[in-house]
Amino acid sequence: MLEYGIIQTRGFANVIENGRVAGFQLLVRMPNYRGAWGSLIDGADVTVDGRAFPREFTRWTLGDRTFTLDEIRQSADVHWDLDQLATLTVPLDGGLAPGVHDVAVAIYLRSPYIPAFVLPLRFDARRECTIVPTGTGAGAGFKYGVSIYSLTGDMNTLMTLEDAMADIADLGATGIELLTQGVPGYPEPSAGWIDQWQRLLETYQLTPTNISSWVDNQMWPDRDLTAAEAAAQLARDLRLAHRLGFGFLRPKFGVISPELDPHPTWEETVLRNLDLAAELNVVLCPEIHSPTPIKHRVTQNYIQLIDRTGTKHLKLLIDTGIFQTVVVNDGHPGFDEDEVPAFLQPLRVPMSDLAEVLPYVGFVQAKFFEIDNTLTDLHVPWADILATLHDGGYTGWLSSEYEGRREPYRGREQLRRQHALLRTLAAQPQR
Amino acid sequence: MLEYGIIQTRGFANVIENGRVAGFQLLVRMPNYRGAWGSLIDGADVTVDGRAFPREFTRWTLGDRTFTLDEIRQSADVHWDLDQLATLTVPLDGGLAPGVHDVAVAIYLRSPYIPAFVLPLRFDARRECTIVPTGTGAGAGFKYGVSIYSLTGDMNTLMTLEDAMADIADLGATGIELLTQGVPGYPEPSAGWIDQWQRLLETYQLTPTNISSWVDNQMWPDRDLTAAEAAAQLARDLRLAHRLGFGFLRPKFGVISPELDPHPTWEETVLRNLDLAAELNVVLCPEIHSPTPIKHRVTQNYIQLIDRTGTKHLKLLIDTGIFQTVVVNDGHPGFDEDEVPAFLQPLRVPMSDLAEVLPYVGFVQAKFFEIDNTLTDLHVPWADILATLHDGGYTGWLSSEYEGRREPYRGREQLRRQHALLRTLAAQPQR
Repeated sequence: MLEYGIIQTRGFANVIENGRVAGFQLLVRMPNYRGAWGSLIDGADVTVDGRAFPREFTRWTLGDRTFTLDEIRQSADVHWDLDQLATLTVPLDGGLAPGVHDVAVAIYLRSPYIPAFVLPLRFDARRECTIVPTGTGAGAGFKYGVSIYSLTGDMNTLMTLEDAMADIADLGATGIELLTQGVPGYPEPSAGWIDQWQRLLETYQLTPTNISSWVDNQMWPDRDLTAAEAAAQLARDLRLAHRLGFGFLRPKFGVISPELDPHPTWEETVLRNLDLAAELNVVLCPEIHSPTPIKHRVTQNYIQLIDRTGTKHLKLLIDTGIFQTVVVNDGHPGFDEDEVPAFLQPLRVPMSDLAEVLPYVGFVQAKFFEIDNTLTDLHVPWADILATLHDGGYTGWLSSEYEGRREPYRGREQLRRQHALLRTLAAQPQR
Repeated sequence: MLEYGIIQTRGFANVIENGRVAGFQLLVRMPNYRGAWGSLIDGADVTVDGRAFPREFTRWTLGDRTFTLDEIRQSADVHWDLDQLATLTVPLDGGLAPGVHDVAVAIYLRSPYIPAFVLPLRFDARRECTIVPTGTGAGAGFKYGVSIYSLTGDMNTLMTLEDAMADIADLGATGIELLTQGVPGYPEPSAGWIDQWQRLLETYQLTPTNISSWVDNQMWPDRDLTAAEAAAQLARDLRLAHRLGFGFLRPKFGVISPELDPHPTWEETVLRNLDLAAELNVVLCPEIHSPTPIKHRVTQNYIQLIDRTGTKHLKLLIDTGIFQTVVVNDGHPGFDEDEVPAFLQPLRVPMSDLAEVLPYVGFVQAKFFEIDNTLTDLHVPWADILATLHDGGYTGWLSSEYEGRREPYRGREQLRRQHALLRTLAAQPQR
């Protein structure tokens, strides 16, 4: 689906020509109610951070053809369809700096059935858009991914799975996380869906990273799952993970206390599945998630089981919400509005705790809530986290998990901001 | 695509069981970020116009299976997917009155990985929804359709073509209008697109009514189309209309004056195409649209050509905006914000003028801008229009054309209000 606003989140980037950054581009959808012959396009004035780029120099790409404004005005066989994005390419030596920009566009269209004194029609749009830095050296040894959880609310309403995957590729990430219970037809997705998933992975060159799974121990009101039933739930999801190409599976167990102690069957559930996990080469990664810190019996029990079994298929998943230093006051869908849930309070786990457990860590969910237009994260201390991960030799995935306000398209834009922030930090000389 | 709000526009209707209206239903999407086992559903409290319908009596339909709350809580093999709508059926003798209702829903979900003292999660949603009256006698001899123009902005962003067609069928209309320059791939849509169009017509039992087409006489800045080129544009669209199954085509010509006199080639363009129109059995219907009234040389020239040629394939299309009695102050995309465009000023064409030209009228676009929650149209006098059409023996299409504010999903809901209004009026005893 196209984005409702005229200026699209996806596609805002610098443009390299002949080995140098020669300008930038943005994608716009047709602002009028009908498509138009290219010859009726009267240009687009682009303004970025107050600097005007007059329409005479901007090139138009429709489909696989690119035009100057003069060329498109003279064209006879180009049509800008309602379901088609036009790419505007604006010359600018060196391009735009990484980060958030204030972008305004005025698109002009002639329309012969409207009296000439009214023409051209003028369609204005303005929004903040983010340039994500790319290129060599910007990774600092980490692998970058995105969890589809970041797009909660937008998925299936404003965005298809393909839109999500196109966004992820466009911001320069190579990994994608899914939720088992977000897969259509779960627990048995159709062969058609799986074919589409594999085709899209190929198209957007994405690697399936972690799939978030649940063992819903208390799924019935009157009795809990037996250990055998719980183990069967996890086994089913392990097989699904493998079938979809995931190398990590996060099992989330039912809890029995306000301190989030997992259901007493958790250990047997894991033990019964370790051989299957090894056979399928999927690593089980219980999640260390606020309000549970690292120095806590729940986390330590996972570590003890890893040590005791010596398995390579049980590790920890760190959700970076545990390092949060400032309260998140935006509430959370499903929870009472009048109080801040425990997991949105700052837990402030010290970096030394992360360094200590790093050998046990298989996966990092880069949880965040809001990054402002100066690329400042309001809650999570990324510089410290990245330095600790780097110094500890972590070279795995940083998988973005946006959990801030659920407003249409907000997650899409916040993901770009986070990637711009993480890559800017990662590119700096290490301490 | 599902609608972003939890309560969907589509599907709000009374339910007939054993020949009587036994309740009403509404469609809701999963409000949480993951799908859920049916057993974790703790019910939904529905409130309509302040009257509470407690969750114990509401039935849940997921896919092709329907459950009481007790049954779904005990189920083991039902999963509410993120991309799937649940139908809530609420018992109520006689159902809800036609018109707009204030609908609130609280959906409760258990979630075992969240401590029990927080559960169940509660998700609230509230909006206005419209019951469209259906059943025999509600048509008054007219045929009801919808123009896709009504969904400008929503199409390709929030809604697919299938969503639009499902909406149209759901509100009880049987006709659909397209725009030539809204067809993907225009002027040569792919065979795949045409196959899909025909499949959807069959699925939703819709008839293609009118296709709105343009002859862009001034499509180049430096010269106008020749009469031959203009005729070729129209011929191409006539063939497309026929291929897609349309019986009417509205040609819109370039204009040469503030009074909207059409380009001087208009008559030759029509004459050159009358044989083709007859061969394809497509009726050309130039549009009588504000600010051009019926008693105006532009309209009268069309009528004279119909009389002179005696053709059955040239008629008038009446846009009901010409009967508008109150100014529309919402502006219009593309136009200067500081003044009201001429076509949004009240033209107040008298009903006697409509009665007079009715023998020449092939098609009616039921243009409107806003219908409030008492089903009052703020600008267009529907009772007078329907009475005049009925008294004059018009039995053709009334094709809704919403042209009010372009806010997400607004057109969808306004279409339901208009159909509720038109059918309520049409069902009243004729004067």
